[in-house]
Amino acid sequence: MFDLIKGDLQELEKALVEAVTSSVDIITEIGTHLVAAGGKRLRPAAFLLAARCGKDFSLERAMPLAVALEMMHMASLVHDDVIDSADTRRGAATANAKWGNQISILAGDYLFARAFSLVADKGYSTRVDVELARLISDLASGELIQNKEIYNASCDVEEYYQRIAKKTANFIAIACELGGDVAELSEDYIKGLYDYGYNVGMAFQLTDDLLDLTSSTDTIGKPAGNDIRQGIVTLPTIRALEVSPDKDELHSIVTDRDMTDEMLQRALDIVRATDGLDYTQQQVHRFLEAAVKALPEEMPADIRENYEMLASFIGGRKY
Amino acid sequence: MFDLIKGDLQELEKALVEAVTSSVDIITEIGTHLVAAGGKRLRPAAFLLAARCGKDFSLERAMPLAVALEMMHMASLVHDDVIDSADTRRGAATANAKWGNQISILAGDYLFARAFSLVADKGYSTRVDVELARLISDLASGELIQNKEIYNASCDVEEYYQRIAKKTANFIAIACELGGDVAELSEDYIKGLYDYGYNVGMAFQLTDDLLDLTSSTDTIGKPAGNDIRQGIVTLPTIRALEVSPDKDELHSIVTDRDMTDEMLQRALDIVRATDGLDYTQQQVHRFLEAAVKALPEEMPADIRENYEMLASFIGGRKY
Repeated sequence: MFDLIKGDLQELEKALVEAVTSSVDIITEIGTHLVAAGGKRLRPAAFLLAARCGKDFSLERAMPLAVALEMMHMASLVHDDVIDSADTRRGAATANAKWGNQISILAGDYLFARAFSLVADKGYSTRVDVELARLISDLASGELIQNKEIYNASCDVEEYYQRIAKKTANFIAIACELGGDVAELSEDYIKGLYDYGYNVGMAFQLTDDLLDLTSSTDTIGKPAGNDIRQGIVTLPTIRALEVSPDKDELHSIVTDRDMTDEMLQRALDIVRATDGLDYTQQQVHRFLEAAVKALPEEMPADIRENYEMLASFIGGRKY
Repeated sequence: MFDLIKGDLQELEKALVEAVTSSVDIITEIGTHLVAAGGKRLRPAAFLLAARCGKDFSLERAMPLAVALEMMHMASLVHDDVIDSADTRRGAATANAKWGNQISILAGDYLFARAFSLVADKGYSTRVDVELARLISDLASGELIQNKEIYNASCDVEEYYQRIAKKTANFIAIACELGGDVAELSEDYIKGLYDYGYNVGMAFQLTDDLLDLTSSTDTIGKPAGNDIRQGIVTLPTIRALEVSPDKDELHSIVTDRDMTDEMLQRALDIVRATDGLDYTQQQVHRFLEAAVKALPEEMPADIRENYEMLASFIGGRKY
């Protein structure tokens, strides 16, 4: 997808392996496993595109921050998989499945710290330190809000948006923003990049939440309705809890910690019978339009094209 | 104990409460509980004493870093308690006992990030960023080494020292070092502070490991032999595994994941019959002597006195 930064992303893979190599064998072992498990590298890609908007792009200067962003994402996934007791991610065994919860918690802590240490002495601006710290505290507080509310069927749309902003959108926004910072762009330019990342991130998480309700084990590697099963209500379900004629039945299912497969299936049927999925899809498009609109006018055409492709990829994502 | 910085430490308590206050209720709730549970505040105390060695001490300037050090310690304890499934710490319920593992993992992540964000825009030197990141990655890798080796009865003394250095001594060393950094002392002076902290930290962890073998539920709030029960061998046991006539029996107990209370009692008897405890106590004194010797000559007498008191407190610690 990212033809412009294909070479950068190849270098990133090497730098990631190097960054997780430690004198402590178990760290190298876990880190290498996580890097090899792959991923879209969406955050460093969003960062690198922004970094290339400036005059004197240097991959050497940008790389430590690109690596740090992906390591922070990896660390958060390691902790998420412990929290969700997930066995696989993208077809590979999770760290907790392979090494247990205890080692995985510590490995996640290590990766967070290693990310901070990678950028600590590279002469980046104060904004880098401030925003990376905010990124992690937002991630954690977004997940905390979500965890606190499980099986509560909290139907506050504003709270839902706040939660996914903290959990996902701010991260991508900050990746774009820091690319602009490294490229020494104007504050207006950086704000445009940030807004693009924020809106793309919101669309990305909404699509994730949609796919969780519409996909099957074949396409996303987990059965549909995983969120509902875990007591998490997302926008389509929140909508259904408002508009469905069966909203009382739906409410009693999504707040039941002893939900059976049949109950889950019934909940999915109720949600799918409403306009919840369409409504959510409309919001995805609204955010993607806002994202593309936020891109600064002065942005080089080839980079804009890549950012637009990223937006349409998210809009059409089926997995 | 720390008469010189009594006022500073009172301010620290207020600043800690403020630092854990968030718009996300659950964060404020957990943070306030953790601050109220108390603690020795050893790391900020070691930092503040060093910071007071300079000419123009400003509590306002030092405070964010003092708070960050204690928050990082709190975060690591929250994760440790999840890893150890501990129910209480210093008589108070642990976060995992009160809110569960999932929320505690996220709360620990939040506290780590919040600590970084507290110092990010305060104009501290690059050393602060570098050393805080190293502190956390060392903490995590020390615990990882320990966790990887459980029930292995790994008797490598060098590895034991490396593990407790990463887990405990480096933290206190860095607290002292960064106090010197904030006070803008000479590199030699800062090195003396670092070495003091490192040696005191080694003595502190050795004493912890000793107390685990000698104390009872009454004094440290947990039954003796907790480390052995968890498959962790510390210096007295490593020594016994070398010198005891019953070393084969001891080895078979400490590597047994199905260890009964009787087996644990027998292991404690075997260790206590050797010179393992005395030998370890000698090492404590060796480290404490090295600590006091490392204190820079130019250090103001009243601060030196406080640091010496801290060393004797650790030497005589019974809980």
